[in-house]
Amino acid sequence: MSAPLRLGIAGLGTVGTGVVKIVQKHVELLAARSGRPVTITAVSARDQMKNRDADLSGFDWEADPMVLACRDDVDVYVELIGGDEGIAKDSIEAALRAGKDVVTANKALVAIHGQELAVLAESLGRVIRFEAAVAGGIPIIKTMTESLAGNGITRVMGVMNGTCNYILTRMESAGLPYETVFEEARQLGYLEADPTLDVGGIDASHKLAILSSIAFGTKVDFDAVEIEGIERVSIDDINRAADMGYKIKLLGVTQMTGRGLEQRMSPCLVPADSPLGQLQGGTNMVVVEGDSVGQIVLRGAGAGEGPTASAVMSDIVEIARGVRLPVFGQPASGLRNAQPARTAVPAAYYIRMELQDKPGALAKVASILGDAGISIDRMRQYGHGEDDRVPVLIVTHRTTPDAIDHAIELLPRTGVLAGEPVELRIEDL
Amino acid sequence: MSAPLRLGIAGLGTVGTGVVKIVQKHVELLAARSGRPVTITAVSARDQMKNRDADLSGFDWEADPMVLACRDDVDVYVELIGGDEGIAKDSIEAALRAGKDVVTANKALVAIHGQELAVLAESLGRVIRFEAAVAGGIPIIKTMTESLAGNGITRVMGVMNGTCNYILTRMESAGLPYETVFEEARQLGYLEADPTLDVGGIDASHKLAILSSIAFGTKVDFDAVEIEGIERVSIDDINRAADMGYKIKLLGVTQMTGRGLEQRMSPCLVPADSPLGQLQGGTNMVVVEGDSVGQIVLRGAGAGEGPTASAVMSDIVEIARGVRLPVFGQPASGLRNAQPARTAVPAAYYIRMELQDKPGALAKVASILGDAGISIDRMRQYGHGEDDRVPVLIVTHRTTPDAIDHAIELLPRTGVLAGEPVELRIEDL
Repeated sequence: MSAPLRLGIAGLGTVGTGVVKIVQKHVELLAARSGRPVTITAVSARDQMKNRDADLSGFDWEADPMVLACRDDVDVYVELIGGDEGIAKDSIEAALRAGKDVVTANKALVAIHGQELAVLAESLGRVIRFEAAVAGGIPIIKTMTESLAGNGITRVMGVMNGTCNYILTRMESAGLPYETVFEEARQLGYLEADPTLDVGGIDASHKLAILSSIAFGTKVDFDAVEIEGIERVSIDDINRAADMGYKIKLLGVTQMTGRGLEQRMSPCLVPADSPLGQLQGGTNMVVVEGDSVGQIVLRGAGAGEGPTASAVMSDIVEIARGVRLPVFGQPASGLRNAQPARTAVPAAYYIRMELQDKPGALAKVASILGDAGISIDRMRQYGHGEDDRVPVLIVTHRTTPDAIDHAIELLPRTGVLAGEPVELRIEDL
Repeated sequence: MSAPLRLGIAGLGTVGTGVVKIVQKHVELLAARSGRPVTITAVSARDQMKNRDADLSGFDWEADPMVLACRDDVDVYVELIGGDEGIAKDSIEAALRAGKDVVTANKALVAIHGQELAVLAESLGRVIRFEAAVAGGIPIIKTMTESLAGNGITRVMGVMNGTCNYILTRMESAGLPYETVFEEARQLGYLEADPTLDVGGIDASHKLAILSSIAFGTKVDFDAVEIEGIERVSIDDINRAADMGYKIKLLGVTQMTGRGLEQRMSPCLVPADSPLGQLQGGTNMVVVEGDSVGQIVLRGAGAGEGPTASAVMSDIVEIARGVRLPVFGQPASGLRNAQPARTAVPAAYYIRMELQDKPGALAKVASILGDAGISIDRMRQYGHGEDDRVPVLIVTHRTTPDAIDHAIELLPRTGVLAGEPVELRIEDL
């Protein structure tokens, strides 16, 4: 058996503690699977005195992650601090320069500085692995970089923020408005310190940008993701969509088109009986489409101690086994610049509006849609309430986002609208 | 860029042709992802004159796979001939001894001779990869050997024979009896030459035995799988199960218990709204449970040219990248003998029987079940037909297979049964 692989772990939150526990629990299993023991040399975290659910007595304590990253008796620097700047990035760079390989769960850092870090690592002959950065315990990075290596990838879709999916499914099951469930989620500790990372779609978009890079051999381009969060999803839309056989999900989609790379993160309708539609609570799902494999669906826990630590461990075992792959599946220096494109791929759309209860109102709306080249697949008009506002739902046939935007812009000119219309894309699955 | 990785492909059926097409289509992609070109030196198949949907003009033709396997200008021998004995096995052994790595899609061979071949390969410093042997395009081998390496695996379940799933879902959707749909499947070319490989559960059990080995670090033990095919699944049971909210699937389950390794392949009931329950047609699904990751679900095409060739290509790219892992995820010499155990893990059961229309009939049945320690969760008695036979459905609470067997054995003594009772396990998901 070879020499042990020695870890330095920076960050002892949920995930860091989870990694420590696995290393301690599965000594023999990890040695058998890695071909060598996996040990922890030293750990680092902000507060040494904090009570943690793991026995740290066998490890050195380093107050400074920079020092930990450069210790002679550390082979792999495991960065679980988080944040896209500052000590997380600095310590990873220090570790690479000191000849260490790096494992991280830091999606923001990989999404924003991944290219630069990958070039540095590859120039130094080191590896960076980040399976835990996307979709927690779901092995999507390995699946895309390795299992689907023989495929031209055509599209990747995913529900990759468990908190948003929790909020949306809870709104539906309890019939509660967004604000109430948001507050519940906050009290349950499901939200990031800055909740817009979750509900604003930022966190999920970090993950989508990383998957785009691997899928299409392009440099990570987080800034080009068209992002819309779930804040404007109303319980009305959830209920109306359910009436029409759909669920609303915060769905990320990336696909390469003739015009360039389309990356979007937005609330979308998906068929209620599809795998994505059936996803409840904090579970994540990623759907990958390849030109040979067809559609592959992966589902599992997107966050939490065990699942995320499991993903970190897979990277550690890979390094222990001597597997050394390029950071994004092919040399970072060869990744192309993504040519970003606004969403132009056609889809069906859901439009909800309220009309004034006047003769000819619906005809005026239909005429605007027709003029925009949009044909209607299904329409429902509900009985009006006490305020003389008539709810109307429309599901269109496939049309372009431009046509929809154009029509939505013209609709107020009919003079029959009460309030703003809502439009949501119905992603083709 | 390094020297090309040169393939010798034996077997040019659906999968072999698919591999040729991918290598020809994705020259640059494969080179970028592999760090070196992937080329085909020579191919071999039984009939050189057969019209194939691929251009073979650039490759040498070898009539004898044994010769192909040993050519100096072949680095990887790709065995796509099939069969668990004879030329497939002989040529793989020859290739290993000639210093080649091996990629195969041959589940029967790996299930029956995998241990012996792995020991040979590892003693010679060669690798054998077989991602395509289990569940087609679904990357289950890599997920289990690599992505879940930090987990103690607790259970693996799968629907891994697309033909059986096609037959069962078609029976339900068309309301047709087994024999009719079996004949349809034969005419559509969905069945193996020996159809008992499919409908008898043998093919799926080969796959299950392979997954057991990887999950639990044991030698593949195909002979210990308790196998029951789908031949006795009636349209009656499919309909009655649907009434109770279940689907019938040919489900493989492997789990390590205190008594030993339980491996079973049998028609089981699963909740209709579960991921396994919703699986239609030829799609496969594997569910893996690990002590850290929780439950991971993978879904995709289980057969066909593209998906299976995609899996073969992932193995080829892995070898091209210089990744060299033990055949079953840890050295074959260290794999333990599985201690096979008959199924003893408790589950709920579905029992269907027909009773004679006599007073007290149901009481007699209930009494037998009660005496066997089986309690009833739900029971339905249907109105009797013209023949005075009363269909009765029972879903039990969790009980042991032994208790069920005991009760089923005693039921005829009530003197109220008309025909044989049917019992099916309801697997806990």
